[in-house]
Amino acid sequence: MRNLLVDKKSGADIKVKVRNLIFGGKEKIIISGPCSVENYDLMLKIAVQLKKIGVHMLRAGAFKPRTSPYDFQGLQYEGLKILKAVSKETDMPVVTEIMDPRDVEMSMDFTDMIQVGSRNMYNYSLLKELGKIKAPVLLKRGMSATLSEWLKAAEYIVSGGNENVVLCERGIRTFESYTRNTLDLNSVAAIKQSCRLPVIADPSHGTGLRELVPSMSLASIAAGADGLIIESHLCPENSLSDSRQTLSIEALNSLISSVKKLEGLL
Amino acid sequence: MRNLLVDKKSGADIKVKVRNLIFGGKEKIIISGPCSVENYDLMLKIAVQLKKIGVHMLRAGAFKPRTSPYDFQGLQYEGLKILKAVSKETDMPVVTEIMDPRDVEMSMDFTDMIQVGSRNMYNYSLLKELGKIKAPVLLKRGMSATLSEWLKAAEYIVSGGNENVVLCERGIRTFESYTRNTLDLNSVAAIKQSCRLPVIADPSHGTGLRELVPSMSLASIAAGADGLIIESHLCPENSLSDSRQTLSIEALNSLISSVKKLEGLL
Amino acid sequence: MRNLLVDKKSGADIKVKVRNLIFGGKEKIIISGPCSVENYDLMLKIAVQLKKIGVHMLRAGAFKPRTSPYDFQGLQYEGLKILKAVSKETDMPVVTEIMDPRDVEMSMDFTDMIQVGSRNMYNYSLLKELGKIKAPVLLKRGMSATLSEWLKAAEYIVSGGNENVVLCERGIRTFESYTRNTLDLNSVAAIKQSCRLPVIADPSHGTGLRELVPSMSLASIAAGADGLIIESHLCPENSLSDSRQTLSIEALNSLISSVKKLEGLL
Amino acid sequence: MRNLLVDKKSGADIKVKVRNLIFGGKEKIIISGPCSVENYDLMLKIAVQLKKIGVHMLRAGAFKPRTSPYDFQGLQYEGLKILKAVSKETDMPVVTEIMDPRDVEMSMDFTDMIQVGSRNMYNYSLLKELGKIKAPVLLKRGMSATLSEWLKAAEYIVSGGNENVVLCERGIRTFESYTRNTLDLNSVAAIKQSCRLPVIADPSHGTGLRELVPSMSLASIAAGADGLIIESHLCPENSLSDSRQTLSIEALNSLISSVKKLEGLL
Repeated sequence: MRNLLVDKKSGADIKVKVRNLIFGGKEKIIISGPCSVENYDLMLKIAVQLKKIGVHMLRAGAFKPRTSPYDFQGLQYEGLKILKAVSKETDMPVVTEIMDPRDVEMSMDFTDMIQVGSRNMYNYSLLKELGKIKAPVLLKRGMSATLSEWLKAAEYIVSGGNENVVLCERGIRTFESYTRNTLDLNSVAAIKQSCRLPVIADPSHGTGLRELVPSMSLASIAAGADGLIIESHLCPENSLSDSRQTLSIEALNSLISSVKKLEGLL
Repeated sequence: MRNLLVDKKSGADIKVKVRNLIFGGKEKIIISGPCSVENYDLMLKIAVQLKKIGVHMLRAGAFKPRTSPYDFQGLQYEGLKILKAVSKETDMPVVTEIMDPRDVEMSMDFTDMIQVGSRNMYNYSLLKELGKIKAPVLLKRGMSATLSEWLKAAEYIVSGGNENVVLCERGIRTFESYTRNTLDLNSVAAIKQSCRLPVIADPSHGTGLRELVPSMSLASIAAGADGLIIESHLCPENSLSDSRQTLSIEALNSLISSVKKLEGLL
Repeated sequence: MRNLLVDKKSGADIKVKVRNLIFGGKEKIIISGPCSVENYDLMLKIAVQLKKIGVHMLRAGAFKPRTSPYDFQGLQYEGLKILKAVSKETDMPVVTEIMDPRDVEMSMDFTDMIQVGSRNMYNYSLLKELGKIKAPVLLKRGMSATLSEWLKAAEYIVSGGNENVVLCERGIRTFESYTRNTLDLNSVAAIKQSCRLPVIADPSHGTGLRELVPSMSLASIAAGADGLIIESHLCPENSLSDSRQTLSIEALNSLISSVKKLEGLL
Repeated sequence: MRNLLVDKKSGADIKVKVRNLIFGGKEKIIISGPCSVENYDLMLKIAVQLKKIGVHMLRAGAFKPRTSPYDFQGLQYEGLKILKAVSKETDMPVVTEIMDPRDVEMSMDFTDMIQVGSRNMYNYSLLKELGKIKAPVLLKRGMSATLSEWLKAAEYIVSGGNENVVLCERGIRTFESYTRNTLDLNSVAAIKQSCRLPVIADPSHGTGLRELVPSMSLASIAAGADGLIIESHLCPENSLSDSRQTLSIEALNSLISSVKKLEGLL
């Protein structure tokens, strides 16, 4: 079997730059924010607080892939505009999900990094479109994708000409129902062994339970993750979606301190 | 929880017409053909044979969602043209997969029914686009989609205005590695109980092993399926993809006879 | 890899006799009864009704493997005595689960066939004990056992000297939560292709929903199963355990008629 | 629903003593050794080396639950005798698996802790027998057991009168085939939140790949595990079983140093 471009054998490790941040460098990158962009004022308030506690980058969904057509689908273009304004105001880079290949080009005016969500990891039309641009991509693992399928999805982007891909383990679907997904840190360890791309972990979706997020954040870093993406909100209970897995700013602050200590040790 | 439009409680069962075929009527619809469109001559030869043995509708992939970017991606637009020509020549309707929302409108000139493949069941941009047209849609189950997620994916199309949706059980991903997927006939039985849409089964992908296809075709019909979609080829060993699960015309012929007998009984 | 004794390549198909019943012969064997033995009078009433509608063999649990130590654990030895008395009174053979290797010998005085439940398929001490006797064994598939592991579990018994083993597909554990388990009929079809042992299906545990049991019973037979084991009760709602998946005698009667018709066809 | 005895709400955390070791105390307990007891000389050599590098406790299988009856089943009683002799010679406590309820009492003369393997987590006859004694039990998670089923399996032992139970996460069965199992550290984090029992992790079975064991050991400790059980051998390639997941003494030594550092931090 031919080597993939993303295999370690094919070249040096790839570091992905997002403004002045480097994924795959010494510092662990912390991305945080609410599940969805709700409105400008709230988004700005959250961003200001997150910056204060050391979060590097903002996340929030404008286009939301929802299981039911009757659920809140996100603020869409309005959401992108809010994200851009808040990013400018706080000088923080942002990442947000794009689902439609027709939105890729347009979105580059609004976001620093494009997220491919778990449901779209096999959306090869979208991946091919992302191979044609240079913008950094955060490629989440499909909820039932094997490691091999996930790396080949990354290969669609890299072989298209865009090697700015950061992988994100977000939990896989198993028989276990206590947690929302099963965070598969084996995959993080395996990627650090054999793949050139940086990888981060999403313990919010990987557990679905905010009380497990701190422990699993540390476990992710110990397994080798280059960063974390964590859902947070000023008032988790009022979050429009995914409230059960969202951390308060205080809880996130304490989590970041622990991560810093662990980072020093490793 | 509100009822979905696709729930039995929301109205009479939906019959989906494709030319003069009716999905959800008394007759079980048999769809067959090769995994991929390879060339006009071969496609025509296969179609002529399939028509002779009682196959109602042709299938073959022009746009192929492949795990690796280096695998054969299908003949694309060229493939659609071949399909249309063969369809005209043999007077058989065709179904083929479309992956990109930008291809939906164009594809209606070439195919009688648009297939959403397993990897794109969660591709809500594509589903929304299919809700805007009137063409029949064959919606395959996502490889790890729950029944509830699958029905809600159908709801995206139906609530958009297009109720011509046929569901297709094609096996789910489990720990079992002997078969390619685990054909979940529980889902077929459950859909016949509670959903207004017709449902067919794909024992080719549902088993991955041609020797299991005849038994599992009968099992699908006995579970309540309104039809079958089965991969066949003049020469299965030479098939460009999925050869291990492809039936010869002879084997398919014998399978169809058994299905007819079972149809009479039920 | 050496052939297993249970492989088709190793000899003729094995027919398992239980009194005058033959598993693996022309007739499909129907086993039915309540989840648990509750008391003599009720058990007798059920058995009499079941015999009347054509059930061949009785099932009911005396030793119940329950997830919680605080759940009803079955009537144990008392239950075995009731089963034997009812069996004698109605002249129907019985099958019941034994979990402890120390109970194997004793149980042969009370039951015609010993069931190994799903939770004990990997209990090799128990399997070895069953290899030393001649009594027929009903070996259920482990809830997450691969086909290969299941056949090797049967091989433990057969290689020990007891080839009277009937396999039973009862559903596997997957991500799907709509049904209790996912009845894997691929395994039934595969066993009929490659294994010498008879195989039956348990659509009660395989679905967990009584309304799916009739369709999935027919699907099991169509897939090649040599029989069915179905939970039934005079009054399903009052059943001490598994009430949601239990059929009434009337529903079972109608199901058996359909099975007979299908049996005639195949 | 009633609280379980193992729930945090039911009392103080339980510390399990094995000689002078304490599971659930400040120190992380490291258990190591070969998959199987092979012979006295080799076992002693390994033990001496392991003691030198700081391993607290020995593990090795005498009764091996093997998928095939034709695979090496362990040295059985002979293996227990070797373990005891090596334990005495090196003054290290040992843990070994017992599968048969009839072996429980006898085994207490040979081992300091009785392991219930993954295949026997649902073996309630065995669990009930272990509830009657006072010896410490290492209860591995069933390969497809939910957290709730696992804790209830522990409850069988604790409610029987023996609260000396240490849980062990060893990976669950999923669709992923790159790793042997998926180590589910969510379960470790959840147990530390809600259960009174100590929990350790088995990254050897949890990954099946020795190169992932160091990272996943650190991840386990970071998730909250009270210790680790790791397969090691003087010469992993020559190990009679599980060679692919076995560490050399040197690799284990380096892993233990990292664990110590992490322990200091947490």
